[in-house]
Amino acid sequence: MKIDLRSDTVTKPTEAMLRAMADAEVGDDVYREDPTVNRLEQIAAELLGKEAALFVTSGTQGNQIAVLTHCVNGDEVIAEADSHIFYYEGGAMSALAGVQTRTLAGERGALRPVDVEKAIRGNNIHFPRTKLVCIENTHNRAGGAVVTIEQMKGVHEVAQKHNIPVHLDGARLFNAAAALGVPVSALSQHTDTVQVCLSKGLSAPVGSLLAGDRAFIEEARWWRKKLGGGLRQAGYLAAPGIVALTQMTERLTEDHARAQQLAEGFRKLSLEVEPVETNIVLVKTDSIRETAVAFLQRLADKGVLAVDFDEYVIRFTTHRHIDEQQANRVLEIVEELIGTAKVSG
Amino acid sequence: MKIDLRSDTVTKPTEAMLRAMADAEVGDDVYREDPTVNRLEQIAAELLGKEAALFVTSGTQGNQIAVLTHCVNGDEVIAEADSHIFYYEGGAMSALAGVQTRTLAGERGALRPVDVEKAIRGNNIHFPRTKLVCIENTHNRAGGAVVTIEQMKGVHEVAQKHNIPVHLDGARLFNAAAALGVPVSALSQHTDTVQVCLSKGLSAPVGSLLAGDRAFIEEARWWRKKLGGGLRQAGYLAAPGIVALTQMTERLTEDHARAQQLAEGFRKLSLEVEPVETNIVLVKTDSIRETAVAFLQRLADKGVLAVDFDEYVIRFTTHRHIDEQQANRVLEIVEELIGTAKVSG
Amino acid sequence: MKIDLRSDTVTKPTEAMLRAMADAEVGDDVYREDPTVNRLEQIAAELLGKEAALFVTSGTQGNQIAVLTHCVNGDEVIAEADSHIFYYEGGAMSALAGVQTRTLAGERGALRPVDVEKAIRGNNIHFPRTKLVCIENTHNRAGGAVVTIEQMKGVHEVAQKHNIPVHLDGARLFNAAAALGVPVSALSQHTDTVQVCLSKGLSAPVGSLLAGDRAFIEEARWWRKKLGGGLRQAGYLAAPGIVALTQMTERLTEDHARAQQLAEGFRKLSLEVEPVETNIVLVKTDSIRETAVAFLQRLADKGVLAVDFDEYVIRFTTHRHIDEQQANRVLEIVEELIGTAKVSG
Amino acid sequence: MKIDLRSDTVTKPTEAMLRAMADAEVGDDVYREDPTVNRLEQIAAELLGKEAALFVTSGTQGNQIAVLTHCVNGDEVIAEADSHIFYYEGGAMSALAGVQTRTLAGERGALRPVDVEKAIRGNNIHFPRTKLVCIENTHNRAGGAVVTIEQMKGVHEVAQKHNIPVHLDGARLFNAAAALGVPVSALSQHTDTVQVCLSKGLSAPVGSLLAGDRAFIEEARWWRKKLGGGLRQAGYLAAPGIVALTQMTERLTEDHARAQQLAEGFRKLSLEVEPVETNIVLVKTDSIRETAVAFLQRLADKGVLAVDFDEYVIRFTTHRHIDEQQANRVLEIVEELIGTAKVSG
Repeated sequence: MKIDLRSDTVTKPTEAMLRAMADAEVGDDVYREDPTVNRLEQIAAELLGKEAALFVTSGTQGNQIAVLTHCVNGDEVIAEADSHIFYYEGGAMSALAGVQTRTLAGERGALRPVDVEKAIRGNNIHFPRTKLVCIENTHNRAGGAVVTIEQMKGVHEVAQKHNIPVHLDGARLFNAAAALGVPVSALSQHTDTVQVCLSKGLSAPVGSLLAGDRAFIEEARWWRKKLGGGLRQAGYLAAPGIVALTQMTERLTEDHARAQQLAEGFRKLSLEVEPVETNIVLVKTDSIRETAVAFLQRLADKGVLAVDFDEYVIRFTTHRHIDEQQANRVLEIVEELIGTAKVSG
Repeated sequence: MKIDLRSDTVTKPTEAMLRAMADAEVGDDVYREDPTVNRLEQIAAELLGKEAALFVTSGTQGNQIAVLTHCVNGDEVIAEADSHIFYYEGGAMSALAGVQTRTLAGERGALRPVDVEKAIRGNNIHFPRTKLVCIENTHNRAGGAVVTIEQMKGVHEVAQKHNIPVHLDGARLFNAAAALGVPVSALSQHTDTVQVCLSKGLSAPVGSLLAGDRAFIEEARWWRKKLGGGLRQAGYLAAPGIVALTQMTERLTEDHARAQQLAEGFRKLSLEVEPVETNIVLVKTDSIRETAVAFLQRLADKGVLAVDFDEYVIRFTTHRHIDEQQANRVLEIVEELIGTAKVSG
Repeated sequence: MKIDLRSDTVTKPTEAMLRAMADAEVGDDVYREDPTVNRLEQIAAELLGKEAALFVTSGTQGNQIAVLTHCVNGDEVIAEADSHIFYYEGGAMSALAGVQTRTLAGERGALRPVDVEKAIRGNNIHFPRTKLVCIENTHNRAGGAVVTIEQMKGVHEVAQKHNIPVHLDGARLFNAAAALGVPVSALSQHTDTVQVCLSKGLSAPVGSLLAGDRAFIEEARWWRKKLGGGLRQAGYLAAPGIVALTQMTERLTEDHARAQQLAEGFRKLSLEVEPVETNIVLVKTDSIRETAVAFLQRLADKGVLAVDFDEYVIRFTTHRHIDEQQANRVLEIVEELIGTAKVSG
Repeated sequence: MKIDLRSDTVTKPTEAMLRAMADAEVGDDVYREDPTVNRLEQIAAELLGKEAALFVTSGTQGNQIAVLTHCVNGDEVIAEADSHIFYYEGGAMSALAGVQTRTLAGERGALRPVDVEKAIRGNNIHFPRTKLVCIENTHNRAGGAVVTIEQMKGVHEVAQKHNIPVHLDGARLFNAAAALGVPVSALSQHTDTVQVCLSKGLSAPVGSLLAGDRAFIEEARWWRKKLGGGLRQAGYLAAPGIVALTQMTERLTEDHARAQQLAEGFRKLSLEVEPVETNIVLVKTDSIRETAVAFLQRLADKGVLAVDFDEYVIRFTTHRHIDEQQANRVLEIVEELIGTAKVSG
């Protein structure tokens, strides 16, 4: 039996989700007649403090539809240099939407308002037009770092001053809210549109929601259709999604506790660990003079799975299927492997 | 209770599908670890006589991924002038893939090989390069018309001669196969890639499959990811999809019988009806001097739903939820409404 | 010495043009400080009855900038099936602007208003949005056919009714005006934007103008820059362009007379010739059972150059360097070659 | 009479260029029959040590055609964060080519090989594919900084190791070569393709050349046509271009001397000046507590023109029309204005 810390996306649905799926009332969502999808979209809009929401099949799809709807070809988007939308979505912003991304190095994933303002383009035919600012919260490559309400507000104010909307990639926004002890709307209020995932720590099998004002969401439906994201009886995915949004958000603190447990354990083993704020633990392997890929291979041989994030950085992600005992087992295995590393070093 | 003939996409899953969904073994399909998705893809590949297949969320997504994978920006695609990929997919081929579509008027939806050959571009910097020929079978706007094996073979041979792949939009390919009394592979063999829908007459809730050779499907995964079609525990959709492919294809002849019943009834009422070969019935309303939209409104008031296909053309689509009795009820209502039309005319 | 009837683009500048070039006052046009370019743009705007104009390096560039400025990615453009913008510009509308082209077969190149109206898309997420109608006048592939004022007006009225702009590819608009005996503005008034070439029958070395209202042209500058069409001391091209617009338009009737001379001569030789309205003569070669390419080769061997327009269609284009005597010489050579063809046939 | 230091693009052609223009033998370059263009392309290819070259209308067009030819939609390009191709070309790489740009902060404009290697993407469907590395030499926003042969070689070696071509934006490559005292080929040899401008310090009115291997240049012709860069009698631009390449490159050292003169003068006035290596001088205005825009306005009132490069950075560019006396006059005016600034500060 593997201990799988590769991602919180590996979580399987709860019993309640499976029951909701079995009992779901469905319809053809292309005709907007799936009552379960409609309910999920309404719940999400309310939670996020937006007028409307749209069910999409993934965080990537939600983010890309946001870009396609906010921008036209030839525009520019400001995003953090290591943000998921730029780093992990296959260059889709440029490939599909024809927009250029101006990347800014953030502070543990958070864009500085002053940098954003400086990056907004002036009115000059040599420049693309800045049409969107993207924030990611929590920030994956920054190690699940939380962007604070103040930081989000700061960026939003600068963007508003220049009439530029802010989109929030909130794939793990519920983790941020849990870490800060605030409702998600306390964060999403400082954005124009927001995408949240149901399929990560919240454990639903598939899907994300894109929320914004009504006109934006109506327009987003056109782009969702072009991407092939218009589904038929999607209620079978929406039903567990409703469980995710209404019953699963508070449990994320358990994942965070588990991540702290791992981080502390790793530090005791003299490993360098990035600050841990949510359910992601970034561990550096340079001190043991072994690449992430090599160490991951040895971990996998012992039944522990994680992913490499850089040549000498491993990401461990905690989630509903990782309990205290398993976390301890991971630490034991790492200790054992480090010993070997030292011997062989 | 409405009699809904708008589309076969409104079909709800069977009991067997719901059971399959409940019992599905799942995993994270982005890591290619969902055993049910993997099985569905293998079944589809075998049925279609291709090396590999990829689960996608809709026919549109399957078609667009095919274009994105076969072509690069600046290329040209040949397609029938009324084909779904050109007419109903939001201009996505040009919007997402940057390819131009050269449309040719077909013969009841079937491209003539001679026209295809003539439309293939020569080597001249004024021209885009022809990189794909698309066939649709059955052809929706041609009234569910079946493209015969001979017709497909003819187009494929011309395309092969010029080293251009053929993609088949087989959203309703199983209807074509049922109408011809052949296995789907008898049709898909005359193509390089093919997309088939699970969610139409086959009654699965969501999804389509794109099939082709192994290298093509590997490459298609990259584009699926960019479109946000990389799902997590997609096995819950794949499980009913397996039922669709293995248990539901033979029942399509029932839908075809129902369509014949409607067509004959309409003709007895002196309505002009396009030839009916599968589960789609196109009826002209000009003889009753009423637009499709106006007549549809009166039909809807009586509880019968269909869609307009042109200013004076209505499409009725039969499917699993339409039985003989309901078809008769539709005919009664139409007769009644025509009477009114004549009086008011 | 070749007799070159391949295109009117082969024309070399007049003495007046060369003098204008030598005397041109220039500046950096990216800073909008080239007085000669500014003057050319003003002259063109006035001639075409528009608020403003923009110098571009080719008809293709003018057309593509028009599309890029009128539309955004995901839109649809209506154009004649054989129009230059669709047929001969490398698929650029889709490649660069991400728009889909809905092609309609015209009547000798002229779109029928009723067809245009039918092709305009309704408000449905399955559709792209129709954002532009393109007219070409004279129509190259229709054999230099003139689209009449009435025909242009008809299309413009339909488009206006649906709030869709009309762009005119007027690469040879001065030929149309000369044939009709009207000022170009009588034609361009039935459009929102228009592109005219300086480098065809008007004999300037390089360049075209795109005209429209002021806001449109300002926006067009942004796209011209992205395409690399922002030039520096462009006055050296603009100066002969001014000569072209102010001194060369009336002489086009000579080219038309020459084309009539050729057409009559070809017909006397029992060759099938398309109706000739301006400076283009389309001759069919099927009656002599020889492909266009084969016949062109034999013509070239005799020093006469033309181009193939279809498997059995040759285009001859008259221009300033073709006089009556040369036209007669062409006819003699063709007669001689046909004789040979008949013998060998 | 203004002293115009905004850019070296404002240079007007020499007498020799005007004579060459007047005497130019021309033809239709779309048919590749303009002998002067052909000769210019051959000269450029030889100078740059490449198999072939292509005349284009601007540096932007040359760069964008390079990207369009090296990459397909969905790919990624590595470029310096402040490079012209990313910063000043309107987002065209993404708008036209659908490629994402991965920007890296360079060292005075020079990419570090180690950073390039780290930025090259692995084989993972979450990533775009890295298909091009762009270098700019001299680097405009880094203040005309020269990228050394060693630095270029280092980047090229890393790129070659990963089978990724290197494109050089050599808009001012002749300045770099002059500063280093080497032939341009000593720099261009460490690239696969290169673009050089005729219209900057070399003083030709219009145009650039894109050079590379023969297959690349053939393909580039297709994209040039789509961008509307296929010209007719382009020899009138090519003729002065030949003078630029053959007679004007050595004089660039004069511009560099003038830039040094300005820099030294500014420093004597206690202004902070970036290191000056070629013909660009970046001066900071924060020490005088005045924004670049405000100071530029006061300069313009005195007849001196330059451009703002950042909120507190002004760029002065020297060129053929700026002599020692004028440079001294600029220094006098700046001194006078600084005095005023101090008083008012």
